[in-house]
Amino acid sequence: MSKKILFISCDWGTTNFRLRVIGTEDLEVLGEEASDWGIQRINIQWKKTSKSEKNREKFFCDVLIKHLDALSKKLKLALYDVPILVSGMASANIGFKPIDYKPLPFNMNGSNLLIDHFSYGQLKGLVISGVCTDTDVIRGEETQLMGAFDTLTNRDGFHCFIIPGTHSKHIFVEQQEAISFKTYLTGEFFELLSTKSILQHSLKTAETFKHLSHQSSFQKGVKHGLHRNFLHEVFQVRTADIFQKHTKEENYFYLSGLVIGTELKDLLQVQPSCQYHLVTSSALAPYYGLALQELNITYTLHHSEKALIKGHYQMYQQYYQNSF
Amino acid sequence: MSKKILFISCDWGTTNFRLRVIGTEDLEVLGEEASDWGIQRINIQWKKTSKSEKNREKFFCDVLIKHLDALSKKLKLALYDVPILVSGMASANIGFKPIDYKPLPFNMNGSNLLIDHFSYGQLKGLVISGVCTDTDVIRGEETQLMGAFDTLTNRDGFHCFIIPGTHSKHIFVEQQEAISFKTYLTGEFFELLSTKSILQHSLKTAETFKHLSHQSSFQKGVKHGLHRNFLHEVFQVRTADIFQKHTKEENYFYLSGLVIGTELKDLLQVQPSCQYHLVTSSALAPYYGLALQELNITYTLHHSEKALIKGHYQMYQQYYQNSF
Repeated sequence: MSKKILFISCDWGTTNFRLRVIGTEDLEVLGEEASDWGIQRINIQWKKTSKSEKNREKFFCDVLIKHLDALSKKLKLALYDVPILVSGMASANIGFKPIDYKPLPFNMNGSNLLIDHFSYGQLKGLVISGVCTDTDVIRGEETQLMGAFDTLTNRDGFHCFIIPGTHSKHIFVEQQEAISFKTYLTGEFFELLSTKSILQHSLKTAETFKHLSHQSSFQKGVKHGLHRNFLHEVFQVRTADIFQKHTKEENYFYLSGLVIGTELKDLLQVQPSCQYHLVTSSALAPYYGLALQELNITYTLHHSEKALIKGHYQMYQQYYQNSF
Repeated sequence: MSKKILFISCDWGTTNFRLRVIGTEDLEVLGEEASDWGIQRINIQWKKTSKSEKNREKFFCDVLIKHLDALSKKLKLALYDVPILVSGMASANIGFKPIDYKPLPFNMNGSNLLIDHFSYGQLKGLVISGVCTDTDVIRGEETQLMGAFDTLTNRDGFHCFIIPGTHSKHIFVEQQEAISFKTYLTGEFFELLSTKSILQHSLKTAETFKHLSHQSSFQKGVKHGLHRNFLHEVFQVRTADIFQKHTKEENYFYLSGLVIGTELKDLLQVQPSCQYHLVTSSALAPYYGLALQELNITYTLHHSEKALIKGHYQMYQQYYQNSF
């Protein structure tokens, strides 16, 4: 068997860290290491023990090396000369390699994203910048977007990529360039309301749409989110509980629908020719799928992890492929 | 001097308790006692030491007596035969006297509100019920509403009473009857977003409209709340901080405006002949005043504490005046 050509896909978030060894031929994941060494934890650690800027990069590299070591052992492979493509909060001010945001537009092949190379001993790789508009910012989703876009057969026309999460993103692409986007605090609102507000006593987590009534509660929530005032409708969660109109599980799905419907209502203004894409995990796909159905929106589903790996691969192609 | 005829106004909330001795002639506050003996704390205390239902009422009466004692000493007045009018969460399930909600409509003189009398030794008084629609509930604001309405010279026509708070209320009155209302989680949202969300790092409390830029930030927030998607616009607080477009204080006022504007946007649908009233404290009046100005809404300002006392006085007149 000929030696496989590899790259390493690194997703470095605020609270999580993930390394994946990828074969370039079929983008197969050969091995994976994940931990809670997000940039926030490393930054706190660095502040505690040292404050020299030079020293700072070392803290991040040490985390990279620790995880690479574990992967090397697991796969019985030498990985230190394999290029590492890093996206996410690693490019933030408190991250591994602070890089300015790239102002829109940016090209779907990643050629005009800002990057910063690093090398540390045998380690080598690059960190990918976030992107910004005058009033909004993204870090990480630009890489998923590139990856998802790369799988399209029809790249012309107007596209909207919905990337759900703590801070959901709607990114609009035209002529193979990202031209605008908006952030929605959907996941964060749901978390705050369901665990920190008065509503926490009126709802209970349940397995996704286990009962038919869960689905109809969710759909009702989406409709109310699309057409009514969120700040009032959330209180329905409490009164439905007081009046025993709905179970606490139904309330959970109603609130999910309400928050997601509120996020998606801006799509009611988008031009009808738009081609929609949902880039998400299998956990969130049923929620957004059902919500988009309420809007009569058909979409292509992209798995967010595959999109991320594909996005890293594009950057690998740009910066490393010729060197092999 | 002839002996003054008195009643006691009691505002019993979830986390606060307040007694006021009021002269019936001019509704002057002769003395006041307040504490954090809200119904929640008493309920927890009762659950810890005893669970007999009979015993339960005693726990609440003991709190009443303790505060009455303090007031008696302060004012050098015997207060035990003075009727006590209680509103707020005292009528909740975990409260002093659980009473069902009165379904709308209810009359502005309070004659068809549900009440429950109590007497305990020399203590006597009544607890006022909350009111409800099919999908919403109120406890406490019904009494403020009656009090504010009682001061009107023109009681005919269609009125909207805006009562800001943790859970703001918009109550609509026609032909001297409350016919509908809506709850908005305005105060709770602001609290969650400004202290528990990612936005907490991007804003800073400041004295109300100390600088002109505070006022314009607030007004911008109101406009965005009225016409844009709240779930996206809140993120402007963070990006305005990242891009150093606004100070953290300006962000504080922008977020206040955004939340209040979102609450008030439903008023854009209300019939133009509506007469508006703002029932609030002097702390919140400037915010809602400026926000209503953005909607070109003129209103009558009612002080919330005076309205509460006046509301209790109406119930006093209904149930006690003839007995003197």
